[in-house]
Amino acid sequence: MAPEPVSFGKTAGSQEPEREERMTALLKVPPGYRAHDPESLRVYLAGVPAVAERLGGDPAAWRIEEVGDGNLNLVFKVRGPKAGAAVKQALPYLRLVGEGWPLPLERAHYEHMALTHEARHAPGLTPEIYHYDATLALIAMELLEPHIIMRHGMIAGTVYPKFAEDLSTFAARTLFFTSDLALSAAEKKAMIAAFAGNTELCKITEDLIFTEPYMVAERNRWTSPFLDPHAEAIREDGDLKVAVSRLKAKFMGLAEAMLHGDLHTGSIMLTVEDTRVIDPEFAFMGPMGFDTGAVIANLLINYFSQAGHEDGPGERDAYRRWVLEATAGFWNGFSAKFLKLWEKEATGDAYPAPLFASPEGRLRLAGERQAWMLRLFADTLGFAGAKMVRRILGLAHNIDLEKIADERVRASAEARALKLARDMMVNTAAYPSIEAVTAQAERLNAWEPKLGG
Amino acid sequence: MAPEPVSFGKTAGSQEPEREERMTALLKVPPGYRAHDPESLRVYLAGVPAVAERLGGDPAAWRIEEVGDGNLNLVFKVRGPKAGAAVKQALPYLRLVGEGWPLPLERAHYEHMALTHEARHAPGLTPEIYHYDATLALIAMELLEPHIIMRHGMIAGTVYPKFAEDLSTFAARTLFFTSDLALSAAEKKAMIAAFAGNTELCKITEDLIFTEPYMVAERNRWTSPFLDPHAEAIREDGDLKVAVSRLKAKFMGLAEAMLHGDLHTGSIMLTVEDTRVIDPEFAFMGPMGFDTGAVIANLLINYFSQAGHEDGPGERDAYRRWVLEATAGFWNGFSAKFLKLWEKEATGDAYPAPLFASPEGRLRLAGERQAWMLRLFADTLGFAGAKMVRRILGLAHNIDLEKIADERVRASAEARALKLARDMMVNTAAYPSIEAVTAQAERLNAWEPKLGG
Repeated sequence: MAPEPVSFGKTAGSQEPEREERMTALLKVPPGYRAHDPESLRVYLAGVPAVAERLGGDPAAWRIEEVGDGNLNLVFKVRGPKAGAAVKQALPYLRLVGEGWPLPLERAHYEHMALTHEARHAPGLTPEIYHYDATLALIAMELLEPHIIMRHGMIAGTVYPKFAEDLSTFAARTLFFTSDLALSAAEKKAMIAAFAGNTELCKITEDLIFTEPYMVAERNRWTSPFLDPHAEAIREDGDLKVAVSRLKAKFMGLAEAMLHGDLHTGSIMLTVEDTRVIDPEFAFMGPMGFDTGAVIANLLINYFSQAGHEDGPGERDAYRRWVLEATAGFWNGFSAKFLKLWEKEATGDAYPAPLFASPEGRLRLAGERQAWMLRLFADTLGFAGAKMVRRILGLAHNIDLEKIADERVRASAEARALKLARDMMVNTAAYPSIEAVTAQAERLNAWEPKLGG
Repeated sequence: MAPEPVSFGKTAGSQEPEREERMTALLKVPPGYRAHDPESLRVYLAGVPAVAERLGGDPAAWRIEEVGDGNLNLVFKVRGPKAGAAVKQALPYLRLVGEGWPLPLERAHYEHMALTHEARHAPGLTPEIYHYDATLALIAMELLEPHIIMRHGMIAGTVYPKFAEDLSTFAARTLFFTSDLALSAAEKKAMIAAFAGNTELCKITEDLIFTEPYMVAERNRWTSPFLDPHAEAIREDGDLKVAVSRLKAKFMGLAEAMLHGDLHTGSIMLTVEDTRVIDPEFAFMGPMGFDTGAVIANLLINYFSQAGHEDGPGERDAYRRWVLEATAGFWNGFSAKFLKLWEKEATGDAYPAPLFASPEGRLRLAGERQAWMLRLFADTLGFAGAKMVRRILGLAHNIDLEKIADERVRASAEARALKLARDMMVNTAAYPSIEAVTAQAERLNAWEPKLGG
């Protein structure tokens, strides 16, 4: 799969002795691991019947190209006479500008485990897995063509009529069926244990999303000097720091369901007819609102970025409306589907049915389901805000904003997104519905922020 | 250690096919396991230098007696010329009246692991461990003499002047140092994984505390017919069922810290000078309020039970006052100590210090610590209420109430406790401080509930 096209700033990682130690430990690869190139991959795949038979023909005739940027994972497209395959292999490091940042190969294990659960609960919405090799940290899967990364499509202004329906199905089903509402307590605890080792990737989230954007940190960057006053305001905002710290504590402590863990528009490949969620290497058992919030955050960022992508003022107004409709459609679809699953398929140990078996009990439980969904909505908005802030002030940005060449236009879009994000995190109760959020986004889109520089 | 002197009613476990299957699976013991008797234990301990040298002299001269009731664990007191030891061995089942209920031997592993963590964080407040044998599910530890189980002492009206101080230290330190406030995220996730397998014992809590007392369940029992109207009111209380289901979801999902998991007055052995916490076999990573709530619940139950233990009306008034003082002293001591630890020893990944480094930041964080403690207090009251209800309407009762021979007196005490418990769970916000709880307990102690029968 194509890697998420994030941009990385200069980092100070190598100046921290602790990180140096971690690097040395993590760069040791297990016996049998080797990073493949197209030719060695050809030999390897020829010996894997599950892939070779699917590709068909003589392995020597397969067309193999490496399409990843080599920073995080190797990604190969392999084409045979019968079919194609995508092969993703983890590298033991993430190579940044001039520096190494180790990442454990075991993330392929968590990605494969998550893909397996997701495929069972949300069939047809992930790439089909053909083969997994733990030693090589390699997953061979369905080649998604002509799908593109959703973020690219949204920057180009493409409407995806099935997106809200498909992604709300994906989120509702993967979160519901891995929660205490569907699982027995023992099954749930087994999943918690199974994912508890994905600490390095969780730590990236903990540091880069919940901590560094709110302080002076060498890995941070932003559109300077234009955004300087807004970045500074965030760094001095005590209420916001408390809000993000509460979210961080929830991220670290609340094992509600199996999360994708990185559910932004760069983890979605789609066409106008077909939607697939890829790259769940950040998967772990965490708070549901982190996934639903990631979706909403990235849609809202794209909404604010449209000012930098239209040929003239108002040219993208219809697309803007679609983005906000998709935002509301995602949440409302998610909420309705999740509640329906809870009504019909609640086989888990939480809210046990026998407690609410009487007509009055059923009525009371229906009310509690609504209240529960409101609590999840509040979590969702908080996490969405945190996801927006990190993409503007932290290490990893996204191209919706980065591709805006005019830095004043970009900084204005970023300031609008920051203002909404901050409000969603601190004044969460002011947003009782997703329509309250999209309405506020529209108001803020007309706001002209004061820029620095 | 002496087992918690609970009373068990007749159960219907064997009528559930699923439970039968579980029994068969669990009653298989690992190779090398045997349940010891005093003579086989003598031979075994003679070969364990860490114990034999401590006891001293000729093993043949050691006095060994089995003092457990044989239902849950074997408990031996072993006395040699130099010192004594207590030896606790898990049995693969819990034998109830006429029926078998399997319990995994691995609970000894979790108990040993928890004792080890507790001893490090709260030195001097647990029995010293001399030896652990995983195959035998056996722990040899310090013989606590002349300590008695706190519940017995409280029924006898004994004041324990050090209890509130010691137990608040125990709870504050064991919870703080196993939380995200003290641990790195990786250390915390490792602990979550390490305890995630203690599912069977967590399931006992999930079923017996958070589910069955609120419905018709064969394992329930109560002081019938006198308490019938109160038991029925609980079973028909939709708000209470929602409240207990929220608590159950929190118990299953929120991994805040390592809990003792069964921190009632039957898990405390003490003298007027020395306090020790025993029996953490229910330990797991859960919500802190479950432990603090357990302490408060059992003190409040004892408070209401005093009507059945005094020789004449008012004879125990001074003791009642002490029980409520100890309740308030425990919570206020816990809160103050926990907050002090957070101020001084917050080395964990939650609420990272660099975010709050400025004078304004420090002030804001101090406010958040107070708000955090209020949220924990609300959790504590909810869990305390659930712990009180289960001891009155569920399977496992406690002798504070059970020893009251006059069933009308007992039912009145139970109705008062139920009324307070229900209010703590449903109207939690009405109790902003522990003094609000103890004041309400005093008011309810004068209330004459209408009894059935």
